[in-house]
Amino acid sequence: MRPRGSVNRDHGEKQERILQAAAGCFARFGFHQSSMKEICAAADMSPGSVYRYFPAKEDIVAAMIEADRRRWEQRFGQIPLENGFIAGLRFLADIGLQELEGDGFLNLWIETCAEAARNAKVAATMRQSYEIFESQLAELVRESQRLGRVNPSLEPTATARIILAAFDGLLLRRCFDPQLDVRATVQSFLTFLEAALSPQAAPRPSRRTS
Amino acid sequence: MRPRGSVNRDHGEKQERILQAAAGCFARFGFHQSSMKEICAAADMSPGSVYRYFPAKEDIVAAMIEADRRRWEQRFGQIPLENGFIAGLRFLADIGLQELEGDGFLNLWIETCAEAARNAKVAATMRQSYEIFESQLAELVRESQRLGRVNPSLEPTATARIILAAFDGLLLRRCFDPQLDVRATVQSFLTFLEAALSPQAAPRPSRRTS
Repeated sequence: MRPRGSVNRDHGEKQERILQAAAGCFARFGFHQSSMKEICAAADMSPGSVYRYFPAKEDIVAAMIEADRRRWEQRFGQIPLENGFIAGLRFLADIGLQELEGDGFLNLWIETCAEAARNAKVAATMRQSYEIFESQLAELVRESQRLGRVNPSLEPTATARIILAAFDGLLLRRCFDPQLDVRATVQSFLTFLEAALSPQAAPRPSRRTS
Repeated sequence: MRPRGSVNRDHGEKQERILQAAAGCFARFGFHQSSMKEICAAADMSPGSVYRYFPAKEDIVAAMIEADRRRWEQRFGQIPLENGFIAGLRFLADIGLQELEGDGFLNLWIETCAEAARNAKVAATMRQSYEIFESQLAELVRESQRLGRVNPSLEPTATARIILAAFDGLLLRRCFDPQLDVRATVQSFLTFLEAALSPQAAPRPSRRTS
């Protein structure tokens, strides 16, 4: 009899193998053009083993979104805020830029978004991720406001939402514009945000007392 | 013999009928799950007639993107700038909000984006649209800067790019968050942009002479 830890590790490894195989298939052929049969072949596992972990393709997509969420939740927790909010965003953006260079990343991302538009289960999983990211980013805005690094008149959740949306819009554009200089565009986004969020910025100067 | 104008109108009407039918199919079933046969049936036209106008599905998608581009190009030309840049953006956003309410709009949009990530012809057509929108929006930023309505230190193209990206990111989020209050989110985006673009905003106050 094997110790329980080893069994759990086996489960984890098998699930990871299925997710990797499915990610490759979805990125190459799209979600609907990838059959469970192809995913099993790519994972080099029997249909019985795969179905045991993931009864349907949508369960695989949901598990991918959840794995992605766990990674990003962790990264949000590691953001160094001592150099200001923009430096924190740059830390996240750099990780995002590295992921973007990964083979098939964009195809998998946009496939997942398209599937979420049609599939309530995938949509719910994705929505949950965004709620968490938005609340984590809003908390960083709040913390940076307390530290005097971000304009205190900005509403944290609305600010977090527009930042997330702008970066998603950039990813989207990259899907059909492979020549787009993403690094330069990220830099110009950060420059724009730095000015927009600056505590010295004066959205309504007529109301200032100084 | 019919006059040439009437023949051209017939062509235009037939193409429009095919595009409408295909839009319905793509939105409901996705691009890859819609066959040319189904599109012909939905348009109530023979395959021969449909193939005469559009030899392949990707030609239909490209024609859809081009039709969308013509509509938006015209709207950009109609933007009233006399009440400022933000009022101009609101004019565009209101049209976008109306389109968003249309049946299947979001599904068709995200399907097109996903296809663009995989299909070079669709990508090129989409890229061309975005280059036009970005340059039109950058020109509006420039014009508003001349009128003293937008901070002159902002780079027009980078500013246009982040605005387009933020609105695309909002559409993307709506794909998996049907309860999202898009109207309120658009309003909070415009409020954020109003402060960020304000000519009174002082991104680098230490360098100001006043």
